Amino acid sequence: MRRAILYGPRDVRFEEHDAPRIIKPTDAIIRLPATCVCGSDLWPYRGISQVDEPSPMGHEYCGFVEEVGKAVTSIKTGQFVIGSFFASDNTCPSCQAGYQTSCQQKELVIPAQAPRLRVPLADGTLVATPDLPPEDMIPSLLTLSDVMGTGWFAAHAASVAPGKTVLVVGDGAVGLLGVLSARQMGARRIIAMSRHEARQRLAREFGATDIVTQRGDEGVAHIKELTRGVGADSALECVGTQEAMWQAIRATRPGGHVGYVGVPHGVSLDGEDLFHTHVHLHGGPAPVRRFLPELIEMVWSRRINPGKVFDLTLPLDQVAEGYRAMDERRAIKVLLRP
Amino acid sequence: MRRAILYGPRDVRFEEHDAPRIIKPTDAIIRLPATCVCGSDLWPYRGISQVDEPSPMGHEYCGFVEEVGKAVTSIKTGQFVIGSFFASDNTCPSCQAGYQTSCQQKELVIPAQAPRLRVPLADGTLVATPDLPPEDMIPSLLTLSDVMGTGWFAAHAASVAPGKTVLVVGDGAVGLLGVLSARQMGARRIIAMSRHEARQRLAREFGATDIVTQRGDEGVAHIKELTRGVGADSALECVGTQEAMWQAIRATRPGGHVGYVGVPHGVSLDGEDLFHTHVHLHGGPAPVRRFLPELIEMVWSRRINPGKVFDLTLPLDQVAEGYRAMDERRAIKVLLRP
Repeated sequence: MRRAILYGPRDVRFEEHDAPRIIKPTDAIIRLPATCVCGSDLWPYRGISQVDEPSPMGHEYCGFVEEVGKAVTSIKTGQFVIGSFFASDNTCPSCQAGYQTSCQQKELVIPAQAPRLRVPLADGTLVATPDLPPEDMIPSLLTLSDVMGTGWFAAHAASVAPGKTVLVVGDGAVGLLGVLSARQMGARRIIAMSRHEARQRLAREFGATDIVTQRGDEGVAHIKELTRGVGADSALECVGTQEAMWQAIRATRPGGHVGYVGVPHGVSLDGEDLFHTHVHLHGGPAPVRRFLPELIEMVWSRRINPGKVFDLTLPLDQVAEGYRAMDERRAIKVLLRP
Repeated sequence: MRRAILYGPRDVRFEEHDAPRIIKPTDAIIRLPATCVCGSDLWPYRGISQVDEPSPMGHEYCGFVEEVGKAVTSIKTGQFVIGSFFASDNTCPSCQAGYQTSCQQKELVIPAQAPRLRVPLADGTLVATPDLPPEDMIPSLLTLSDVMGTGWFAAHAASVAPGKTVLVVGDGAVGLLGVLSARQMGARRIIAMSRHEARQRLAREFGATDIVTQRGDEGVAHIKELTRGVGADSALECVGTQEAMWQAIRATRPGGHVGYVGVPHGVSLDGEDLFHTHVHLHGGPAPVRRFLPELIEMVWSRRINPGKVFDLTLPLDQVAEGYRAMDERRAIKVLLRP
């Protein structure tokens, strides 16, 4: 079996390796009909996060259960399942509180840029679909594993609710699905920040009512203008840079909510500045597992189609080209087929 | 009329100055039967906040309305009133959202370490008591102007609710009243961090169930122990230092809430560290005005007695000694009588 390995900045290879097998009795092995490249994979790809040794890549997955360990009771061979990028027992106090990505037993699920994957803590981590899905639904189900779950959490963390004015910072797949999430949660007005035409189009299709192309002070000023000087009720920060974070915070009204899900890189918040903004701040690695049953139902009933973020499909063995296309912003998100 | 002026670090003088008078038609003049020194006054007193010019001091007040401007309609001469340290119109979008300390017309109300005070935006800022209060109730009513309102907001911001485990960082007047607030809001367990015996006693009297004397990593470890490895549901940060802020954040469980009301001095939050804690963060200058009607009722009915934080009473002309006593932690909070 071959899988994607990152050797260093811009050096992704697709290499032979032993197929995954059951290691612990709580594991499951699943066969992946599709996988993808994540925006967060670009941090190490671009050398912004250090790569100390060759790293197997990919953490977004859904697929057919081929084998389960002896201790697995709820997940069955033959089912179609989706799980989060972090495995979780779904029983510890953090899981019970809905923060499965802070599970006391959490474990990153990799490498999913491969035809088969070992998923630890299968009973806690995986959620099965009602039946085997039709082929065309697989891309949307795949997004639930990370980007859709993360956009949904961002909107939750930002307390999006009917009638609210929502700002979305970031026009990657997570930001675009944050737009879709805000629409589903009843936001009245959704302002997407984007300078990229194809992404603006998809943002509008997903429910954005306004597009703001300015950034920095000018961007904040424009959002204030659009909101009669007040600011947004909710802001979704879906990038992870200092600029995006302050953009979101400063464009939010006093008492408003900022949900941040972009993995922070070099972000530092001055306590006193934050104090005077009066915003609520919440975020972190999205506890996708909490939302899976609800999101699966939404995709299953065809109420949402988050798979539209995949605008390029490649064979899995061209995974390196997938990284290049996303790095150069030629693609929003790349679907890989084995 | 004489009033307190801070000339520089540890140099408070009580000096003659013109009595305040109506400047704008929305002003009121009130006579102060008591005033006090705030923990936040100690930042400039200690030279931690810069003092560029002689500064009139004091921002906590309640008293008898002596005169109102022509545009004042709801506040009447002769009433007993309480207001926040920030004047607010109580009608702008921030005020309507309950964030009067971010009012579009906000204005600091100073100097209250004086026998009389001008309060701007009187209709929006001041709330009258049901009747003239008995003398012994005045200290408690005075706390509503800042420290009690701030402790209450901290507990609100930290989503304290029945049954919760609450941590209070800071044993100053705000922290102690944060304990009292958490108790009123139904917290099951209240852990106060304090090394000071008199403050520990008052914390217990206000409702603390546990006292933690350790700080830093050791303090966090002890709180984790007390909460079966999970952390507090809510933490009230009532200091404003880097150590206190991280103490509060790190001792809170994933998905828990940190309410921070200590004015941050030199606080900087690393985005990635914060991201992985999964806490909710909310705070800022307490919108005391929002809570005044409710808190006045609680004091009026003698359900709470926050005035107990005053453990030293001095004549107003000894205000400098009041600062010294608080600076040296000989007093929790100093009441000044004209």
